[in-house]
Amino acid sequence: MTGKLYGLGLGPGDPELMTLKAHRILTSAPVVAYPAPDTGASFARQIAAPYLRADQLEVPMIVPMRVERYPAQEIYDAAAVTLSHHLDAGSDVAVLCEGDPFFYGSFMYLFERLAHRYPTEVVPGVSSMMAAAAAYGRPLAARNDVLTVLPGPLENDVLRARIESASAVAIIKLGRHFPRIRALIDAMGLTANAGYVERVSLHSERLLPLGDVAEDVAPYFSMILIYKGAEGWALGAAPQTERL
Amino acid sequence: MTGKLYGLGLGPGDPELMTLKAHRILTSAPVVAYPAPDTGASFARQIAAPYLRADQLEVPMIVPMRVERYPAQEIYDAAAVTLSHHLDAGSDVAVLCEGDPFFYGSFMYLFERLAHRYPTEVVPGVSSMMAAAAAYGRPLAARNDVLTVLPGPLENDVLRARIESASAVAIIKLGRHFPRIRALIDAMGLTANAGYVERVSLHSERLLPLGDVAEDVAPYFSMILIYKGAEGWALGAAPQTERL
Repeated sequence: MTGKLYGLGLGPGDPELMTLKAHRILTSAPVVAYPAPDTGASFARQIAAPYLRADQLEVPMIVPMRVERYPAQEIYDAAAVTLSHHLDAGSDVAVLCEGDPFFYGSFMYLFERLAHRYPTEVVPGVSSMMAAAAAYGRPLAARNDVLTVLPGPLENDVLRARIESASAVAIIKLGRHFPRIRALIDAMGLTANAGYVERVSLHSERLLPLGDVAEDVAPYFSMILIYKGAEGWALGAAPQTERL
Repeated sequence: MTGKLYGLGLGPGDPELMTLKAHRILTSAPVVAYPAPDTGASFARQIAAPYLRADQLEVPMIVPMRVERYPAQEIYDAAAVTLSHHLDAGSDVAVLCEGDPFFYGSFMYLFERLAHRYPTEVVPGVSSMMAAAAAYGRPLAARNDVLTVLPGPLENDVLRARIESASAVAIIKLGRHFPRIRALIDAMGLTANAGYVERVSLHSERLLPLGDVAEDVAPYFSMILIYKGAEGWALGAAPQTERL
């Protein structure tokens, strides 16, 4: 009997935004693996930390943080070998994933290497996009809105065309693309309709109109939401102040 | 002191896919309100049912199920009045929402009527779109994919243009539009890339290639996922069989 592989969506950051199911599996799996940057803490582990036990084996997978390039395949090859040893030994392995595992997540790299060999289950999670709309206090999309999600590394002509044809837009993976994207949104006359959200659902969360962002670089866990209705994002209901 | 209004995302259907936070608020709110169809059971209440207590006051809001038209504003006017009585009396009110409250959800109709008058918090939830990808065992979107969400009532020329310009597509609110949309996807040569998902995460869940769907009407809680990569949806990793 091999163990079972879980891709565990932990939600956007607040540990209380993980599902009951993720909590059950997190607290019962003997092996817990998670991506970790080469320097600094693993965000996925931070979300799980309140519920981890000392008797669980932790397997950090060191993945250099790069917004630009796809993660090195050899890192996931090696991680898959490591996890397969635990699975072969009959231990269930929970891979911790920020947000939702299959919404632009890196779990797919392990899934494609291991899911055909071991029982595998993906446990969906709350994505930061949903949490951002909740924090801002305005619907992400409603009625017959077309909602489009755009990764920031896409080129300006692609971004422009997709923004033009959608009612609601979420731009993710901002990083060093942030000033270029902000300038594009400004050139399109949509700055008043754009909200910026950083580290949503954490104590360090920041919500502000895009036009009020002073910085020229956005952290990895940030996004821009655009709503093209007359009310826009900045003019929605008052942002919430109580969350945690 | 007035009570606090919560929009509680309960996830796609499996009660275990609600968040720890939604569970905490659900089990502590003295008043629990939920949309209910004019005939049949309330889906939101069904998700919450394992955790409801006999001493909680339940407030069903009867909303006729119509995929086509926006819900009658007078229904939400009346519901807002009812809930405001409880809030004025100092009781917290949890409004139960399937999926995520601000992802095409009806909670917005109460939010826009009450959030400026009472402390209000939206608790994000797992959307059925994320759960569908997890169940199918293939990423909803990855890398620099453009993901577009399309409501089924949109006209064919809009749907066609948006499908053409996206890498990954979720079509929601199918209902009686299903045969028209299926024919459109077929005419675009994308049937082999399309997966159909019904009642995701419930025991009655159905996952199948779009080409294998025999029916001409889809239930309200169904969607089509299209992935335009070479692998498509139907050719992804094996769908999962163990979920509940």
